[in-house]
Amino acid sequence: MKPSAIIAGFGPGLGQEIALKVVERELNVGLLARSADKLESAARASSSNVIPLPADVTNPDAVEAAVNHLEETVGPIKFAVFNASAFLKGSILDFSPAEFERAWRISAYGGFVFGQAVAKRMVTRESGTILFSGATASLRGNAQSFGFSSPKFALRSVAQSMARELGPRGIHVAHVILDGVIKGHKHSDPGGDAHMDPKDLAEIYLRLHEQPRSTWTQELDVRPWCEKF
Amino acid sequence: MKPSAIIAGFGPGLGQEIALKVVERELNVGLLARSADKLESAARASSSNVIPLPADVTNPDAVEAAVNHLEETVGPIKFAVFNASAFLKGSILDFSPAEFERAWRISAYGGFVFGQAVAKRMVTRESGTILFSGATASLRGNAQSFGFSSPKFALRSVAQSMARELGPRGIHVAHVILDGVIKGHKHSDPGGDAHMDPKDLAEIYLRLHEQPRSTWTQELDVRPWCEKF
Amino acid sequence: MKPSAIIAGFGPGLGQEIALKVVERELNVGLLARSADKLESAARASSSNVIPLPADVTNPDAVEAAVNHLEETVGPIKFAVFNASAFLKGSILDFSPAEFERAWRISAYGGFVFGQAVAKRMVTRESGTILFSGATASLRGNAQSFGFSSPKFALRSVAQSMARELGPRGIHVAHVILDGVIKGHKHSDPGGDAHMDPKDLAEIYLRLHEQPRSTWTQELDVRPWCEKF
Amino acid sequence: MKPSAIIAGFGPGLGQEIALKVVERELNVGLLARSADKLESAARASSSNVIPLPADVTNPDAVEAAVNHLEETVGPIKFAVFNASAFLKGSILDFSPAEFERAWRISAYGGFVFGQAVAKRMVTRESGTILFSGATASLRGNAQSFGFSSPKFALRSVAQSMARELGPRGIHVAHVILDGVIKGHKHSDPGGDAHMDPKDLAEIYLRLHEQPRSTWTQELDVRPWCEKF
Repeated sequence: MKPSAIIAGFGPGLGQEIALKVVERELNVGLLARSADKLESAARASSSNVIPLPADVTNPDAVEAAVNHLEETVGPIKFAVFNASAFLKGSILDFSPAEFERAWRISAYGGFVFGQAVAKRMVTRESGTILFSGATASLRGNAQSFGFSSPKFALRSVAQSMARELGPRGIHVAHVILDGVIKGHKHSDPGGDAHMDPKDLAEIYLRLHEQPRSTWTQELDVRPWCEKF
Repeated sequence: MKPSAIIAGFGPGLGQEIALKVVERELNVGLLARSADKLESAARASSSNVIPLPADVTNPDAVEAAVNHLEETVGPIKFAVFNASAFLKGSILDFSPAEFERAWRISAYGGFVFGQAVAKRMVTRESGTILFSGATASLRGNAQSFGFSSPKFALRSVAQSMARELGPRGIHVAHVILDGVIKGHKHSDPGGDAHMDPKDLAEIYLRLHEQPRSTWTQELDVRPWCEKF
Repeated sequence: MKPSAIIAGFGPGLGQEIALKVVERELNVGLLARSADKLESAARASSSNVIPLPADVTNPDAVEAAVNHLEETVGPIKFAVFNASAFLKGSILDFSPAEFERAWRISAYGGFVFGQAVAKRMVTRESGTILFSGATASLRGNAQSFGFSSPKFALRSVAQSMARELGPRGIHVAHVILDGVIKGHKHSDPGGDAHMDPKDLAEIYLRLHEQPRSTWTQELDVRPWCEKF
Repeated sequence: MKPSAIIAGFGPGLGQEIALKVVERELNVGLLARSADKLESAARASSSNVIPLPADVTNPDAVEAAVNHLEETVGPIKFAVFNASAFLKGSILDFSPAEFERAWRISAYGGFVFGQAVAKRMVTRESGTILFSGATASLRGNAQSFGFSSPKFALRSVAQSMARELGPRGIHVAHVILDGVIKGHKHSDPGGDAHMDPKDLAEIYLRLHEQPRSTWTQELDVRPWCEKF
């Protein structure tokens, strides 16, 4: 069996470009997302090496089942990316507690659930890479941004703890701080190279995976050349 | 009506000492915790200025009702402390998702719910102080500590966002990083001044409240003199 | 002999207000600065408890002599504040290396020299407080600000290392991050409480000194309520 | 003229491996160090593409002359690495001020001088990469480590300010936090992949240089898989 990769939080943009790079490197890739339809069409559009894994990342049993399915029918997971996120803004004075919970459930709880399911498998082989997508909001809570920022802080902590626990067991866990707009993202105009090209971002994720274990990066930031920071 | 204070996450130790300092400064103080019995006996033991507010900090309606009750029967809240926390450790390989959620719900969601309920009242008067208790784990995710650390990261982000939104509206929001063991805490032996005296900690909280608005602290750390860090 | 305090980087504003607060607490205070004239008039204007110590903070022998003079003629130093700083801005493309060096020499080397001279005395008594004034630039290198920021980073590191080495020997070392304009400072208009009142800042420094050793703060930030951050 | 690279702080280990990788990518490379002999033999041993540039990195005129020599006789510099550092430990109670200054002069002032000389050239072409080597000590001042840490903090600030000023002018400035022992370094035993292989580190530096400007990293950490952090 060829090794496989798995991407949670698939969608046009970064998730898709990572999937394509993975396929170029001759891995099979499982795409985990809630919408079966979206996944099917993504899978058809890309390659026979793409396996749709319809599952809600906030459901531990569903995620574990999807991971097991990929491991057993396709191949051992050596590369995993958690890219799911909710983007919510609002004032502390009227932000809905239910929305605050929903954002955490997708961005932070989902990351824990996914990371745990994948790590349980990787640890038996003492090898593998798990990457988490963060944001500038992972480092700084701005006014009206806590709905996005608080789960991102929470996720970054999970990534750090996993890196410290799992590194000595052969698993590379890293956190990528995306600072800027991803090109083609719905909130943005194209903007030449003033925005982050998802193909270039995907290359950064793959290169983290390819770092030999003598030199592992735990955290790096990425932004376009002209971004203020 | 005299102004009042409110403390969420009351218990022997820090919460109790803050309550006593508040009463010394001639404020009434509401204690918010789940156990009505514990609160009643605390209230009886301390002073007629102490008002038990039995409510679950993870229940937005109950917290809002408690805040409204205090505001309407005792006096406007000018000082609020969020001190609730769950302390959980364990490996990413077998940590229960339900426990991960429970820790977040108490430490981070509870902080959001409490902070929001209090801020809504304070903002109408353009004054007040809201303090959140953090820990070294608010800054660093250690191996096996994500169950404690991830919610503490999440809470710190809420405190930062609230400070940035509410500061210009006259409300002082600060985050206290407690680095070390609190004396008398169940996990610890007494240890002279090698452990943090809750009376001394309480004084730090009160002094943050007393900072004039020309010079507000948003974050500070506290540890005993001999603590390694 | 009554205990004494020493302030390096004295000038109208923060240094002066700390000196006044120290005198109110019935300590004698030595003011260390290069200009003998400025010191004499400050001393005359304030109180007989104020001792001018003309010395260049970048000259180790002169600083040691001043510290020894204060210790031997006035009293053991229990409180020391390093407040000297050079404020330089400019582009990396044409910033003068000599200016870059000068800024470091005052802000960082001066802090090391002063901190060392004072610590040598305090360590024999296993008690005392040493405070360093930092800035937002201590945490973040902005465009064109490295002339100010780089020495402030360097000084923060010295404060951290001193805290970790000297804490267990009974000496409290802390770093205050001043984020905002100090009222009355030459670059500013008065601005009500939109600027930091040096009297209020001085109170924060004195309260750090008064923290019991069970609860020491190593770093805190201070800014006016309306400051963006 | 083919483009060139320049490495300051050359020595066996990381500097040498970066030079070899640069030559593999068909660039010429100038090695800047104080010892002409060491450089000559390194140059002979490696390749005709290696140009020795004997100069003291703490001497602005010498560094500027070396940069100009490389640009005019070999080719425009598109990749520059600052890797010089002094490693000093000691107690604040007896650390020599002269040693404190020397460490800063090599690690921080040298970085400023080198970065400025290179940036002046690159900015005319609106392209190029400048990398600075940091350490864990760039982020944290440990007991007895300020002689190493304080200059590393200072250098990190310079890198950040340069990145913010020069990014929008097309120059990529990044800071690499090396956390762990480099294999073959004199203080260490070999240790298999428990230590950082300088070849693998060099690859990370080259890949930072090759990032397209839509996705630039400003800071990343690197450590071996089994390193505690």
